Amino acid sequence: MLQSQLFYKTLKEDPKDEQSINAKLLLRAAFVHKEMAGVFSYLPLGLRVLRKIENIIREEMDNIGGQEIFMSVLQPKAIWEETGRWSKMGEIMYRCQEESGKEVGLGSTHEEMITDIIRRFVNSYEDLPLYLYQIQTKFRKELRAKSGLLRGREFGMKDLYSFHSSEEDFRKFYEIIKKSYLKIIKKCGLDPIFTEASGGDFTEQYTHEFQVLAKDGEDTIIYCEKRDFSENKEISKLSVGQKCPKCGFLLKEGKSIEVGNIFPLGTRYSKDMNAYFIDKDGQRKLIIMGCYGLGLSRLIGSIVEVHNDEKGIIWPSSVAPFQVHLIHIQDKKGKVREEADKLYVNLQKENVEVLYDDRINVSVGEKLAEADLIGIPIRIIISEKTIAEKSVEIKKRSEANAKLVKIKELGKVLKL
Amino acid sequence: MLQSQLFYKTLKEDPKDEQSINAKLLLRAAFVHKEMAGVFSYLPLGLRVLRKIENIIREEMDNIGGQEIFMSVLQPKAIWEETGRWSKMGEIMYRCQEESGKEVGLGSTHEEMITDIIRRFVNSYEDLPLYLYQIQTKFRKELRAKSGLLRGREFGMKDLYSFHSSEEDFRKFYEIIKKSYLKIIKKCGLDPIFTEASGGDFTEQYTHEFQVLAKDGEDTIIYCEKRDFSENKEISKLSVGQKCPKCGFLLKEGKSIEVGNIFPLGTRYSKDMNAYFIDKDGQRKLIIMGCYGLGLSRLIGSIVEVHNDEKGIIWPSSVAPFQVHLIHIQDKKGKVREEADKLYVNLQKENVEVLYDDRINVSVGEKLAEADLIGIPIRIIISEKTIAEKSVEIKKRSEANAKLVKIKELGKVLKL
Repeated sequence: MLQSQLFYKTLKEDPKDEQSINAKLLLRAAFVHKEMAGVFSYLPLGLRVLRKIENIIREEMDNIGGQEIFMSVLQPKAIWEETGRWSKMGEIMYRCQEESGKEVGLGSTHEEMITDIIRRFVNSYEDLPLYLYQIQTKFRKELRAKSGLLRGREFGMKDLYSFHSSEEDFRKFYEIIKKSYLKIIKKCGLDPIFTEASGGDFTEQYTHEFQVLAKDGEDTIIYCEKRDFSENKEISKLSVGQKCPKCGFLLKEGKSIEVGNIFPLGTRYSKDMNAYFIDKDGQRKLIIMGCYGLGLSRLIGSIVEVHNDEKGIIWPSSVAPFQVHLIHIQDKKGKVREEADKLYVNLQKENVEVLYDDRINVSVGEKLAEADLIGIPIRIIISEKTIAEKSVEIKKRSEANAKLVKIKELGKVLKL
Repeated sequence: MLQSQLFYKTLKEDPKDEQSINAKLLLRAAFVHKEMAGVFSYLPLGLRVLRKIENIIREEMDNIGGQEIFMSVLQPKAIWEETGRWSKMGEIMYRCQEESGKEVGLGSTHEEMITDIIRRFVNSYEDLPLYLYQIQTKFRKELRAKSGLLRGREFGMKDLYSFHSSEEDFRKFYEIIKKSYLKIIKKCGLDPIFTEASGGDFTEQYTHEFQVLAKDGEDTIIYCEKRDFSENKEISKLSVGQKCPKCGFLLKEGKSIEVGNIFPLGTRYSKDMNAYFIDKDGQRKLIIMGCYGLGLSRLIGSIVEVHNDEKGIIWPSSVAPFQVHLIHIQDKKGKVREEADKLYVNLQKENVEVLYDDRINVSVGEKLAEADLIGIPIRIIISEKTIAEKSVEIKKRSEANAKLVKIKELGKVLKL
């Protein structure tokens, strides 16, 4: 992509009404545009990051046999009344009126809708197990929508629902998903902690969260460095300085961000909504359900909270909008531009995602400051000086030092 | 994909509360699930079709230099008040209340939001032209939501917005988009007619529609078979039987479905919302806008309206959920299953998208009826009889006759 064509505009100063690092940096670097508190539009750079994360998730969901669906945002009141949550969710759920006067809700979560679908489709134990997921926008009336992409009124989420005929099969799948989620979060460049937590509205059993340590996180967890033990502080009877009940190490307390959670739903929804199957023995039984959420926009926010410095964002390669930021430093004869153009074409031929700063009326200082703010993993500078050495200057965004690399060796260095 | 694993369940009978062919067939073949009038969830088969169309559109949008963004559904009242459309759109736009009492709208269209974004990003003529598009769900209070995916309350749309510094450049781009849209619609297996129409709320100038002839279409157009002339009947002063004013052929009247429309917005929105740029001559001028919509869910509905027979859907190859439907007819020794498994693996290796009917407790008649209903372009049957001839039976969904093809020649026949 030519930077002269890219739809973006950086801000030199932090937007004054933002507190969180992720909002400040994502707005300054034009990854997103704020529409109102907790509501963001994705601009080209931000959408590229979102798609990268979506694809990491899809790949992993396919691996575990998940099937993708796409449920509607508008939800009929009737299915929420079956579970008694129409009134319970009143403070959270956005509601609209049809011209007819009928009320509809905007999907804040989709347990009711998915249960309504599967009760029409599942008859027998042979139809199970079943793993359905979607990547869809969710809507929640959120009073504390002050943390950028960490807490949205409108936010992207991947929600997976599992349907089993036996508790034993469900337990096995729960362990598979646990590993799968840890893998996804790691692929996004984060270091997740699997944490026990209280169940909230969803269940009275235990539930689990995937937490990422971050100094401005809204949660507090008690954990052991060996990761043998971790609990959300809200439910933990232990505290920092005590010994881990599993390995004896001293416990730490960390501010953290919840990026995912998994809930054994048991028969909570299938019971209320009459979702049965006929088992091998001919008996009519309730379907055992689980639900598994991953916050998509929250993952983006978390990545920025964790990976940044005073100059800007430092994207992990797996989710970066581009892999290489190619910057040409203009000379009078136009020779550098020519070489840079060539390099741009060649990198693209090798399927490297390149943002090419081809602008001519911008100072070197401004170009470099913008590159640091945007945070693409590898910066390549090409100038009169480097060309004299038949080289380019390469610097990782995450490292301080640059090095000269011969142009002909560039492929090897970039591992193409 | 193994059909035994696929999340779907076909209905033998038409759902009794549906009038339109697309709703009947898409529901019967489990491409979608109806949540309420005009609101559908996409099930795995339907989502595959949706993604195919999205990708056809993205490819073409990239070709013309479009940049993808993703604007929010929730929209602040303030920007709609700037154009006076908060009150005008009252009957169409869904609205919710925040806890604070503040009203927000659900995006029924995004002119206000995109204009609000670009007025913050565009300064100079050098920032123009600019082509921004999104694929996003739209919401409209629709009284006549009775035509399946043709008229939704919640529906997928691709909307593109153009921003130019001169009327001349805009006109050129308008012609480019016209060709681009015709190309997209043709790629989806439809035969579009480019039609002049009245402007509706958007503009008092001419606007254009992309219409597809269909016997149950809601629109009526007057057109000449040479496609030199076409007008929406609502504005046309001509009628069927009169001569085409351009070529002299007799005019026809056709029921049709509007799948896309393009509007020259001029400075309607930039004026109301103060979206200016500084021109070469240093003058502050209003940005010239255009907007270009393509109905995504409506395209799916239209394809089904046009491509079907009494047995089910007949997907054009470009948008089919799978390319090949491989059906094994069970024998007692399990030999057919073995051969079918092999073929399935080999086709996948060649990147053919295969739905493999691996089910053993289902009759041949039921398998074939389901295959016809689902409508995958190529059906391959493998049975004891075909194996005896080292062959499979191939039949196109769009043709009546099947033929035997040697397994080793299958690649050639499928053009792999």
